[in-house]
Amino acid sequence: MHAITIPEPGGPEALVRAEVPDPVPGEGEVLVEVTASAVNRADIMQRQGFYDPPPGASPYPGLECSGRVTAIGAGVSGWSVGDEVCALLAGGGYADKVAVPAGQLLPVPEGVDLKQAAALPEVVCTVWSNVFMVAHLRPGETLLVHGGSSGIGTMAIQLAKAVGAKVAVTAGTKEKLERCAELGADILINYREQDFVAEVKEATDGAGADVILDNMGAQYLDRNVQALAVNGRLAIIGMQGGRKGELNIGMLLAKRAAVSATSLRARPPAEKAAIVAAVREHVWPLLAGGHVRPIVDRELPMSEAPAAHRIVEESGHIGKVLLIAQA
Amino acid sequence: MHAITIPEPGGPEALVRAEVPDPVPGEGEVLVEVTASAVNRADIMQRQGFYDPPPGASPYPGLECSGRVTAIGAGVSGWSVGDEVCALLAGGGYADKVAVPAGQLLPVPEGVDLKQAAALPEVVCTVWSNVFMVAHLRPGETLLVHGGSSGIGTMAIQLAKAVGAKVAVTAGTKEKLERCAELGADILINYREQDFVAEVKEATDGAGADVILDNMGAQYLDRNVQALAVNGRLAIIGMQGGRKGELNIGMLLAKRAAVSATSLRARPPAEKAAIVAAVREHVWPLLAGGHVRPIVDRELPMSEAPAAHRIVEESGHIGKVLLIAQA
Repeated sequence: MHAITIPEPGGPEALVRAEVPDPVPGEGEVLVEVTASAVNRADIMQRQGFYDPPPGASPYPGLECSGRVTAIGAGVSGWSVGDEVCALLAGGGYADKVAVPAGQLLPVPEGVDLKQAAALPEVVCTVWSNVFMVAHLRPGETLLVHGGSSGIGTMAIQLAKAVGAKVAVTAGTKEKLERCAELGADILINYREQDFVAEVKEATDGAGADVILDNMGAQYLDRNVQALAVNGRLAIIGMQGGRKGELNIGMLLAKRAAVSATSLRARPPAEKAAIVAAVREHVWPLLAGGHVRPIVDRELPMSEAPAAHRIVEESGHIGKVLLIAQA
Repeated sequence: MHAITIPEPGGPEALVRAEVPDPVPGEGEVLVEVTASAVNRADIMQRQGFYDPPPGASPYPGLECSGRVTAIGAGVSGWSVGDEVCALLAGGGYADKVAVPAGQLLPVPEGVDLKQAAALPEVVCTVWSNVFMVAHLRPGETLLVHGGSSGIGTMAIQLAKAVGAKVAVTAGTKEKLERCAELGADILINYREQDFVAEVKEATDGAGADVILDNMGAQYLDRNVQALAVNGRLAIIGMQGGRKGELNIGMLLAKRAAVSATSLRARPPAEKAAIVAAVREHVWPLLAGGHVRPIVDRELPMSEAPAAHRIVEESGHIGKVLLIAQA
């Protein structure tokens, strides 16, 4: 088969299409013929040499895909050859085929086309596990989403609105904020021009955000704690603004607040399967009902993976950038 | 009535016994004739002028007491004059009488005498709300308790052992560690001589602590994150080592870990009542069954509150220091 490989870490041109051996599904795995994959920031870090795949994972980038089941490994039940699926991957989505633990498969939701389903697994699992399973966002609470127009952000807005929460977002342009508003965001904050702490406080009568979904890490840590409400929960899923920051424990304690940080890729298969099962139970009906949809910025052929990475690195996109496999 | 008052903040001698007006129970409150109160570090901070009582609370120190119900306010059911109780207070325990929201009352547990019951409310509510309600310690997991011989520490050891967890403690002397061992602690760490990160890792085959109950704040923040296991939860309840510390978000994220910080006193009555109800359901049977008991270092007459504060400030005690009301 063909895959996008990384012979040497580097810029977007480090992504090289090459002929590689076909993956073989192990026990508990299925083989998926890839229809589409999608770009995540972790792929860019992997390409740059800063984020090695976990032990046992495919060496190729790609943390999610959609496609068709073409072979079933030993000990797998509930899936058949020909099923249209999407999947959360530990790697290997930028390829014609990928072997996936069965617990990380999801059916393509009703009303979503097979290609677009590749935009779902990472963002839905990341948002659901952090905002709902860890931070327990409840109806009537306020969620602040940093990077509201990203793949994660566009899904977080929709899911939070679907459960009856109020949503504040930050983004860097008027156009991005307008797209967030179309998806339901109530409070729009241009981080280049406005102070998100002051804006969130003002929009919540001084209370602050009950839950914050953050991709900036150190750079926003202190301001995020300032923006939290009493009993607030800060969920960190990225460190685009650095890895070490000063934590004001006194303020955290006065607010009885909490800071969590997670990543999806490093979780063992059993934890991934639990998240996928929760997503199938809680989010799949919202997709089938049309209340939530994948937001896709554009589709590029898999061979143009370098161009797709450039787009995501420049943050010129809104939602997900898909890579379409070439038959 | 008489109360221990704080005319001016200062050292232990700032505590002055004085004649003051009797409290009157408001709606939803009962009046308790105090048998005993107990010293908490928050009382010392209040005496020093660093921790004002929350709005509406008694101006006198004392966050817990035991005694007898002598009057019932409007709208209170389930309690009668003459009941022997202990209570979680927002202040005012260092006095002959105190008015308490009914939701913060607990019956004196079977097998515990009325004076000793004053040692229970703060430590049981603090440990239960943090270790179990926030950090969800589970059977088979490892809890690290800093200050294992303190009032909080001695209760945390017992409750964690009662639910089937493994317990590591830090303390500053051999004698204190021996008392922790008698209460069930499995891993004994002298923080003056040993590195708690290395000791906890070694005792858990490299895994680390699933939950840490911390009273040191900034000074231990980085090492606590190092000592956490994957999916670990750090619960901060004190800042004896400072209020601002560097958080290694990268390490937190790699471990999918969380940091929470809480205090009991500032919580609104409804939250306190929820904690008290959970404690009555889960901890009171353990006390009645003799599986858990209040650990009392010594009893002093209320008029010797300054001496009691000196003992706690010098950390010469093991468990709680009680103040006995004078009829």
